[in-house]
Amino acid sequence: MATTRPTHWGVICSELLTRLRERHPLVHHITNFVVMNDTANATLALGATPVMAHAQPEVAEMVGMANALVLNPGTLAADWVTAMLIAGRRANQIGVPIIYDPVGVGATKLRTTTGRRFLKSLRLTVIRGNSGEIGALAGAGGAVRGVDSVTGVAEPIRVAKNLAQRSATVVAITGPRDFVSDGRRELGIDNSHALLQTITGSGCMATTAIAAFCAVTPDPLVATAAALACYGLAAEHAARRARGPGSFRSELLDALYQLTPTQIKTGVRIVEL
Amino acid sequence: MATTRPTHWGVICSELLTRLRERHPLVHHITNFVVMNDTANATLALGATPVMAHAQPEVAEMVGMANALVLNPGTLAADWVTAMLIAGRRANQIGVPIIYDPVGVGATKLRTTTGRRFLKSLRLTVIRGNSGEIGALAGAGGAVRGVDSVTGVAEPIRVAKNLAQRSATVVAITGPRDFVSDGRRELGIDNSHALLQTITGSGCMATTAIAAFCAVTPDPLVATAAALACYGLAAEHAARRARGPGSFRSELLDALYQLTPTQIKTGVRIVEL
Amino acid sequence: MATTRPTHWGVICSELLTRLRERHPLVHHITNFVVMNDTANATLALGATPVMAHAQPEVAEMVGMANALVLNPGTLAADWVTAMLIAGRRANQIGVPIIYDPVGVGATKLRTTTGRRFLKSLRLTVIRGNSGEIGALAGAGGAVRGVDSVTGVAEPIRVAKNLAQRSATVVAITGPRDFVSDGRRELGIDNSHALLQTITGSGCMATTAIAAFCAVTPDPLVATAAALACYGLAAEHAARRARGPGSFRSELLDALYQLTPTQIKTGVRIVEL
Repeated sequence: MATTRPTHWGVICSELLTRLRERHPLVHHITNFVVMNDTANATLALGATPVMAHAQPEVAEMVGMANALVLNPGTLAADWVTAMLIAGRRANQIGVPIIYDPVGVGATKLRTTTGRRFLKSLRLTVIRGNSGEIGALAGAGGAVRGVDSVTGVAEPIRVAKNLAQRSATVVAITGPRDFVSDGRRELGIDNSHALLQTITGSGCMATTAIAAFCAVTPDPLVATAAALACYGLAAEHAARRARGPGSFRSELLDALYQLTPTQIKTGVRIVEL
Repeated sequence: MATTRPTHWGVICSELLTRLRERHPLVHHITNFVVMNDTANATLALGATPVMAHAQPEVAEMVGMANALVLNPGTLAADWVTAMLIAGRRANQIGVPIIYDPVGVGATKLRTTTGRRFLKSLRLTVIRGNSGEIGALAGAGGAVRGVDSVTGVAEPIRVAKNLAQRSATVVAITGPRDFVSDGRRELGIDNSHALLQTITGSGCMATTAIAAFCAVTPDPLVATAAALACYGLAAEHAARRARGPGSFRSELLDALYQLTPTQIKTGVRIVEL
Repeated sequence: MATTRPTHWGVICSELLTRLRERHPLVHHITNFVVMNDTANATLALGATPVMAHAQPEVAEMVGMANALVLNPGTLAADWVTAMLIAGRRANQIGVPIIYDPVGVGATKLRTTTGRRFLKSLRLTVIRGNSGEIGALAGAGGAVRGVDSVTGVAEPIRVAKNLAQRSATVVAITGPRDFVSDGRRELGIDNSHALLQTITGSGCMATTAIAAFCAVTPDPLVATAAALACYGLAAEHAARRARGPGSFRSELLDALYQLTPTQIKTGVRIVEL
């Protein structure tokens, strides 16, 4: 599937990842217990610097030194949601991009209500979720069981575009093909591997990758597409060496760390829709 | 040690795992911080679907879509215990099996009191612990240091059987040989490997496996024995490739994912006692 | 770099690790969400026994059966800090060594204030941090961004020595060369590998190793140097097999588990400064 000549998007992705590895942007995560370790390691493997901090008295100060903020209420509780809102408001004030992962929105009332509250209270730079989560968040159908999409939206491009326009944000619906829209432009990203479905936190690590890329370019649509392409490409490389989910998880961090400019330039598969 | 012809129990275990991989049951975990990631990954490697949710306002709703509920107060605190009781009561109302892991019961008063409270307040489908934990929970001796058994019970079969009868539950005491009883039948499971003692969460992942199997058969004794046999068999396979606890942990997830019907049919070692 | 004949310090380190593997000391951790799993696994790989417990009603009782206490407020919140102080005071009463990891001190006011409070309220046996953290804790300069040192102290030996004297503790500043002082003696440890910077929790695992060694010798300076040397040596071994941060992390646990007396006797590089 990979072409052997650098593509337009391949060059963009490669330049952004190179910049990321030079600048080591700080990505402040307020995230869930399940994936804290994985997302911290993914951040480091990409070349960025993670910090996990959720205490209400320090989140505003911490976000003040960050280059991007991840809000991931995957194991949400009231005080954590409050901390996310404090950090998010501060991020909005000082122009730090917020990347929001609506884990499990659509599964329980608490998660859906929290998601809507984030949409209303914060200016979100990027929202990344699976088809069910984004569908439920947008009120466009989509059912979620636990944290997995069971009924995706019928027309992901339209749903992503509408939500992006309504909320002035970039929306990414990830799956075998990822769909990204900023309300004006729509992109499809075809780098992915089925083994991503066999490990926990694969979506959360994609969100982290988006945050790291948002820290080094002012165009969140490009950042999101580049992050998802590089992440999916790393998954493809990892899958070649993996024998199952345990080795895949380990290989994925190795692959994120080892991605070369040449591999990226010729391997990313981003299409304009 | 493995026989080369399918055994009676081997066929049962294989059929249950096949069913599990087809149905992808949802296993709701309220569990400890140390093993959340490992148990989510073990759930996925087996073919089931994990969700971790502990917020009191959502646990009853989440358990309503689950096929099994794991209660694992390994890093317990008051609000988490309350959430476990809310989820557990709802599970009892709607017939979702509860698998309880009494981590560290016998080590501190708080853990022992919490364990007794769970026994009294909930109808537990299966209780899985090490010899010290089950001994302490049953009031049958057994000492726990940290979360490890230091003095096991002298007669595990009798202790398991008595607790099973008294509490109308299945009791599993895991170790080099696992003992399982529902108060009428007693089984021993000899699939295991010493490397399981070198990684954290090996007991918690066994509990998760039991929950996944309980989600696909109404007989919790059979589910428990089958889960422990498949898990122990995967550990045996993993150990052949491992060079230490780090690689073993990774290989264990690969092995859970890769177990074939033939390996299970000929490899499980369950004996009726 | 490794010599081929046993060194004075090599013999000491080897004897301590052998003792550790024989005694399986219990290391009670009150630590952060990101590294709980990694530090539990590192504890086990070294031959010690981990327990993670943070509930205020049980921490004093748990520390009563422990051989060392790790306080690591890496994802601190008010109730966890209170639990750490309760556990720490009990540890001081009964003579359990406390190993404190000032994660992110210098980054936010909350972290710096908490660090100073620990210094004032508890008799700490060892403090281990990066150059920025120890500099900020000591009021000797040093800047921290997230949880990473950006401006280290100019004279680490002097800063470590002064803080050690003032607080009657052992201070370890870790980096490519680790500096350790108890206020009278200063040591440098040169076992390390650059891949440690690519995984989360590498500092936290070093702290855990120190705690495990403090549990088997009454001399915390020697324990700290031996732990850091063994840990760094394991990292060197792991790096030879690793292809990136994912495999390095797995290999590191394998290497900690597999370190032989001969490797230690000839491989540790500790110098008296």
